[in-house]
Amino acid sequence: MQDKILNLLKKKESYVSGEDISSHLNISRQALWKHIQELKDKGYDIEAVPHLGYRLASSPDRLFEFEVWRSLNTKTFGRKIFYYDTLTSTIDMAMDLGVKGAASGTLILAESQTKGRGRLGRDWFSPKYKGLYMSLILRPNMLPTQASILTLLAAVSICTALKSSTGITSQIKWPNDLLVNNKKLCGILTQVIAETDRIDFVIISAGINVNNDKKSLISSATSLKEQKKEEVSRVTLLQEILRELEINYLFLEKKGASQILEKWRQSNATLGRRVKVYCQHKHIEGEALDIDSDGGLLIRKDNGITQKVMSGDVVHCR
Amino acid sequence: MQDKILNLLKKKESYVSGEDISSHLNISRQALWKHIQELKDKGYDIEAVPHLGYRLASSPDRLFEFEVWRSLNTKTFGRKIFYYDTLTSTIDMAMDLGVKGAASGTLILAESQTKGRGRLGRDWFSPKYKGLYMSLILRPNMLPTQASILTLLAAVSICTALKSSTGITSQIKWPNDLLVNNKKLCGILTQVIAETDRIDFVIISAGINVNNDKKSLISSATSLKEQKKEEVSRVTLLQEILRELEINYLFLEKKGASQILEKWRQSNATLGRRVKVYCQHKHIEGEALDIDSDGGLLIRKDNGITQKVMSGDVVHCR
Repeated sequence: MQDKILNLLKKKESYVSGEDISSHLNISRQALWKHIQELKDKGYDIEAVPHLGYRLASSPDRLFEFEVWRSLNTKTFGRKIFYYDTLTSTIDMAMDLGVKGAASGTLILAESQTKGRGRLGRDWFSPKYKGLYMSLILRPNMLPTQASILTLLAAVSICTALKSSTGITSQIKWPNDLLVNNKKLCGILTQVIAETDRIDFVIISAGINVNNDKKSLISSATSLKEQKKEEVSRVTLLQEILRELEINYLFLEKKGASQILEKWRQSNATLGRRVKVYCQHKHIEGEALDIDSDGGLLIRKDNGITQKVMSGDVVHCR
Repeated sequence: MQDKILNLLKKKESYVSGEDISSHLNISRQALWKHIQELKDKGYDIEAVPHLGYRLASSPDRLFEFEVWRSLNTKTFGRKIFYYDTLTSTIDMAMDLGVKGAASGTLILAESQTKGRGRLGRDWFSPKYKGLYMSLILRPNMLPTQASILTLLAAVSICTALKSSTGITSQIKWPNDLLVNNKKLCGILTQVIAETDRIDFVIISAGINVNNDKKSLISSATSLKEQKKEEVSRVTLLQEILRELEINYLFLEKKGASQILEKWRQSNATLGRRVKVYCQHKHIEGEALDIDSDGGLLIRKDNGITQKVMSGDVVHCR
């Protein structure tokens, strides 16, 4: 109902009479008044003037479900949303919901995280209302060993969404960091919960620095605000990410991984470069040649031998 | 403290005076009386006779932590136990505890399960006090793609423990059912919770029909009680399983998979037989030749071609 009231107010720049809203939505004036109060509590600045009615002066920068759903147009991605002001981590909540049987496409959003998580047990700094902190539950019909393609799919989808939603061109650092001008903008973490021969569910999580101020970021990180010199709508960006994720996911299901791999190659910052990959207490140095069909990185070492790594931290040399 | 009181009572077949127990354990007579009441509430039949003291007439058939710990002698497996009278499934609890950071070796036990789970989303019938329903959390230092060896390890360990603890010889049906006289005695389920390049934790779960009466079992299932014509101590069996699991796990960490695979080959009911394997909407028929180093089953089809399957349901033909 609050969604419908907002839609009516947003349609008109000026005042809408309470009577019009009430009769249109078939609710009492008293019920309308209560909903308006609740919207005000959520941060919507709604002016009420006697004899004129209500006017939406401004909307808060929040990821409320009904804001995300407005003209989202996905089939399943984000159709069910669990929204929180603060979580330890959207991943923890996604794990809990996934175990309890949450449907594929379920989205978990938090305005801030007290223990935001990155790859390999690292932290992700998650200040309130500044970034996008999201986890998406998927139940793909694939073997656990095939799941690493989903990491590449997520990187490709977010990269495309960043471009179409904000105009910012980002590059993918293998396997799944998004960089702008060699600084980290977005981290992606894919977790697989599986029996040895069957995926139960997958959690794709992303942390994106959106409206973080430059001074709050470490020197190796950047935000969309820093790049664009203006605030960016987190809702619009999130919607575009959900759409891109779903498009690529449905394509993967129907046609296989080749298009994802090709998009990844086009947007990556790693291939063709000299890299050091640190994995399991050792490192491999050489030229990053290509990614394999399962997402592994092929490195030609100085002795001419090509080696494949499935995991690790990449340092781009020079 | 209740553990210590039980130890004193179990040492002596006859009465132990309250004064002796109190002074030995340095607690008041009143505190002792309270502990005795709590033990009685748990089902321990403790006789109290004036001027003689206390005598343990019988112990209940329960999987209390202190019963499992008595002379367990493992390093980490089962050193931390979460014990419940009823759970939906030990797996759900293990998932929750694993996400919250429970240590490797943490064991979850339930006397009954309302939604006991088998492989591929199936049920596991879990009547109260009749079976062993357990989940073990492990944090192995291996890649997610290597985790299937843990399924074989669990099957081999439980097979060995069944033999040494009860004398019953069971056979492993690929990948991980335990059969006695071609009837199912035990189901094992391995779940992996992983980032694409790092295992977060693994849950090894087993359901074993121990003291189930024949009439409560479906015709394709059996219990240890049916096979032995007598009740079996679930605690003793559980301890032996934990010891075997730990021995094989430490061996795997140090020496690799070859011994696990060899033990599996020795105890299996599948290799050398004609099998039908149903996987992903089709089936493969042929002779089960061997298992691969990653636990896959190699099948020689009638056209002479050998095919490997990583998952599926096996039907032993003839």
